[in-house]
Amino acid sequence: MVLRIQCTDRVGLVASIAGVLSAINVNILSMREHVDTAQNRFFIRLVTAATVAETDSETLTHQLQQVLPASAEITVNPSPKKKIILLVTKEYHCLSDILIRNHFKTLQASVQCVIGNHSSLQDICERFGVPFHLVSHEAKDREIFEKELTAVINQYQKDYLVLAKFMRILSAPFIAQFPHKIINIHHSFLPAFIGANPYRQAFERGVKLIGATAHFVTNDLDEGPIIAQQIIPVTHSFTAADMMKAGKEIETAVLAKALQLVLDDKVFVYGNKTVVVD
Amino acid sequence: MVLRIQCTDRVGLVASIAGVLSAINVNILSMREHVDTAQNRFFIRLVTAATVAETDSETLTHQLQQVLPASAEITVNPSPKKKIILLVTKEYHCLSDILIRNHFKTLQASVQCVIGNHSSLQDICERFGVPFHLVSHEAKDREIFEKELTAVINQYQKDYLVLAKFMRILSAPFIAQFPHKIINIHHSFLPAFIGANPYRQAFERGVKLIGATAHFVTNDLDEGPIIAQQIIPVTHSFTAADMMKAGKEIETAVLAKALQLVLDDKVFVYGNKTVVVD
Amino acid sequence: MVLRIQCTDRVGLVASIAGVLSAINVNILSMREHVDTAQNRFFIRLVTAATVAETDSETLTHQLQQVLPASAEITVNPSPKKKIILLVTKEYHCLSDILIRNHFKTLQASVQCVIGNHSSLQDICERFGVPFHLVSHEAKDREIFEKELTAVINQYQKDYLVLAKFMRILSAPFIAQFPHKIINIHHSFLPAFIGANPYRQAFERGVKLIGATAHFVTNDLDEGPIIAQQIIPVTHSFTAADMMKAGKEIETAVLAKALQLVLDDKVFVYGNKTVVVD
Amino acid sequence: MVLRIQCTDRVGLVASIAGVLSAINVNILSMREHVDTAQNRFFIRLVTAATVAETDSETLTHQLQQVLPASAEITVNPSPKKKIILLVTKEYHCLSDILIRNHFKTLQASVQCVIGNHSSLQDICERFGVPFHLVSHEAKDREIFEKELTAVINQYQKDYLVLAKFMRILSAPFIAQFPHKIINIHHSFLPAFIGANPYRQAFERGVKLIGATAHFVTNDLDEGPIIAQQIIPVTHSFTAADMMKAGKEIETAVLAKALQLVLDDKVFVYGNKTVVVD
Repeated sequence: MVLRIQCTDRVGLVASIAGVLSAINVNILSMREHVDTAQNRFFIRLVTAATVAETDSETLTHQLQQVLPASAEITVNPSPKKKIILLVTKEYHCLSDILIRNHFKTLQASVQCVIGNHSSLQDICERFGVPFHLVSHEAKDREIFEKELTAVINQYQKDYLVLAKFMRILSAPFIAQFPHKIINIHHSFLPAFIGANPYRQAFERGVKLIGATAHFVTNDLDEGPIIAQQIIPVTHSFTAADMMKAGKEIETAVLAKALQLVLDDKVFVYGNKTVVVD
Repeated sequence: MVLRIQCTDRVGLVASIAGVLSAINVNILSMREHVDTAQNRFFIRLVTAATVAETDSETLTHQLQQVLPASAEITVNPSPKKKIILLVTKEYHCLSDILIRNHFKTLQASVQCVIGNHSSLQDICERFGVPFHLVSHEAKDREIFEKELTAVINQYQKDYLVLAKFMRILSAPFIAQFPHKIINIHHSFLPAFIGANPYRQAFERGVKLIGATAHFVTNDLDEGPIIAQQIIPVTHSFTAADMMKAGKEIETAVLAKALQLVLDDKVFVYGNKTVVVD
Repeated sequence: MVLRIQCTDRVGLVASIAGVLSAINVNILSMREHVDTAQNRFFIRLVTAATVAETDSETLTHQLQQVLPASAEITVNPSPKKKIILLVTKEYHCLSDILIRNHFKTLQASVQCVIGNHSSLQDICERFGVPFHLVSHEAKDREIFEKELTAVINQYQKDYLVLAKFMRILSAPFIAQFPHKIINIHHSFLPAFIGANPYRQAFERGVKLIGATAHFVTNDLDEGPIIAQQIIPVTHSFTAADMMKAGKEIETAVLAKALQLVLDDKVFVYGNKTVVVD
Repeated sequence: MVLRIQCTDRVGLVASIAGVLSAINVNILSMREHVDTAQNRFFIRLVTAATVAETDSETLTHQLQQVLPASAEITVNPSPKKKIILLVTKEYHCLSDILIRNHFKTLQASVQCVIGNHSSLQDICERFGVPFHLVSHEAKDREIFEKELTAVINQYQKDYLVLAKFMRILSAPFIAQFPHKIINIHHSFLPAFIGANPYRQAFERGVKLIGATAHFVTNDLDEGPIIAQQIIPVTHSFTAADMMKAGKEIETAVLAKALQLVLDDKVFVYGNKTVVVD
């Protein structure tokens, strides 16, 4: 069983939580606790030896609520198999990596469907038997485009939306529908090279490393709490196209890493930051 | 305050420990707990908001002993400033890095003295006002050499001995005097290239990465629980000498990292392994 | 055009080669030359502005032969699209990564077929329309098994055989059929943990990094010239199974990197080493 | 001998250069050539077997001038031991690392003197017998401050000025005195976090990696051709102060790496970029 709690900090929280578990004879195998002292915020994630049946889970939540601040966010035994929807445009690398892991059941999630604003990636989805929905943005107001997106999304159960190289900017109202539930891969080492064509920017600047950033989407595509970042070295011999090619490798790897962390319930979000208890 | 406990695992340990702290109104700012289920061993390190006066420390230890297994190893409020003795031969890089940090008081330890089996590094120690003792191994049985080493070591208080490129093999009886208190830097990515001249071995094998390993010394120089490892890339254009030169950079960095972890009380040792709660 | 030459070193080789190119008005855009002074061996790879037609390629080779040692290995304008055959057992990660790149034509090769000694990976091959051949090793002498492998392999044109987690040990006679043409991914940081179950070995040793090594196969599966190596950090909280899971990520990445280098004609082999001019 | 040439590109340059060397029976051990096709710029660095006496060096330069464009920048046999002047403020880490390497003669340069705008680092310089000059910026116009700096600098021979955590912004006229001769270490992964207090900025943004950048100074402290960059991971548990502490490690390492590259004559500069032929 995994237990996650986020709440205002005060003395005695760990004692209270561990006391509840000890009383029902549950052994804690691994625990990480963190207090953000600036924000007076408490985070804890723990893994126990026992699995807990559904009904116990409700009882346990209730017991924990008795000893925690009223506003505590408690997740007992989160689903080990989340449901995700992927949004894509034309680039295959992140999507394919996720489809492969989904197919071989090593992703801690099942891909419900893929939504593309181009049809380029329909074929690869069909090869894996994953539903593909074309929602074109062309000749449409963004509002209408997003209404159509929402309509498709609402056909499915989902824990997270994953923007696996989805190249449209989403509006604040759209994003507000899915708070802390949209994960994006940005093709630069944020906050360097915000905006369009970061590889061209990186090439012009003559950088020696390029990066990628996976983050939750809050207001716009390049902001929001960062989940994971990685870099790879580049040299003077890289053209902007070479940088883009090398960047795709790191984009795939970072998104895979961020998904693993989120799907394993290792990521807390608050304000514009994450607490990652890997 | 930092609190560290290592003991046999059983249900309720976290509740007991956190309960003791909560009762004296101490808030836990950061906690990491780990159970080695194969060995049924419990490890916890926590940082609290309160500093605890010396007398409180004894009281707290006593209170914790009441609720923990009899054999529990409890460290309340370990000294933030350890005392270390360095053993060296001729290579300057690790020693100098530690002397600089010691001089500017950014090492969480004070260097008590340096012992060299050559006089090469006497000058650099004197420049920093650190006592240097020459204990030559030449024309001596190892037993006598180690007796002389021990005599010098015993003149000083010390928490750890650091073999900062000390190129003599120490005997099991010598090592047994300082259990889990001797830290060595080995110039390879253990367990590859155990033994003499690892850079020559690495060159002959044509590897593309070389590494360094910091570890506690148990039986001989290249064994013992690993604390930290790092690597750097090398290419076909590296000679064995180039690899050695590049390796020195990584040796310095790994030993510095391992010392920081150990001196910050973030490393538990048990059996042939470490638990590093960074 | 790419030009590669490997031969015994002597004064004037670069002048001779560049002279031949200059005489036919070919501009050199990028050149790397390396001499292994210990072995008196000369390596050069250069990229030119001009593309050279097939007939020119023969003429150029002939012109270069006039100015180089008789035994020089000259490759003018190597095929930018190699042909490869994959050998697999049950693990999907390396195979799938290659199949995806092959499908989207970003691999500098076309996958001719996949040969498995189990049928587990037949389905994924069929989803991409890549021929799969089952050659079971069960209840067979190795000699017969390898004869069957060879029979399938000989049905196809191929530049390289890629052991993409092929878990059978191949005999020296089999390997001798494809000198420097078999690429293997080994699931450790060679030469650490040679042999079976390296992740179990790594776990027992308590290492803080695990690695993977891509290499040409010479005598047996774990020897031969190393092409690329990478590592990832692990911690005390990793079980042997966790290490294996993390290792798969790095195996996939290292094999992809090594293939890219080999397929881009950036790897020279001689003796038990490679010269990689990336 | 090392030979470096930078000039406008045209067909036949390598043949001409190698021809000159071949004619005097000089063997090329290692060569890297690169053409920036966008800028039509040719770069070559080669290492030969022969050492060349001073007079030969002039002859060789003259011979090369005959076969190269008039504006070619030719460096034959650059001094293996450069002279450098360090500018510092209060932080010890980069300075100490350089002083140690200088002291043990593993830096490919000799430190002529250190200039500080505070006296904090005078003591460490004196311990190594390196001249220290205090040039305070307090209660002075920048023009006067820089005039005083220049006066001290002009007392010494120097190949490079190294800003080893020099926290004053230098004017364009000052910088123009030393074109491509001033090396700076910037405490972020440029171009992220340009300007003041990058660690505070990084902390606020919640990044998962922090970096450092060594670059030539052109117009202002944070611009100019990048020589080397590195990063290290950080987590939610890092305060801004922890990030700064971790950043110092990477600053030291990146500046050391950049200096090694520049002092080994492996860095070409043109426009706002470098060509690094390591």
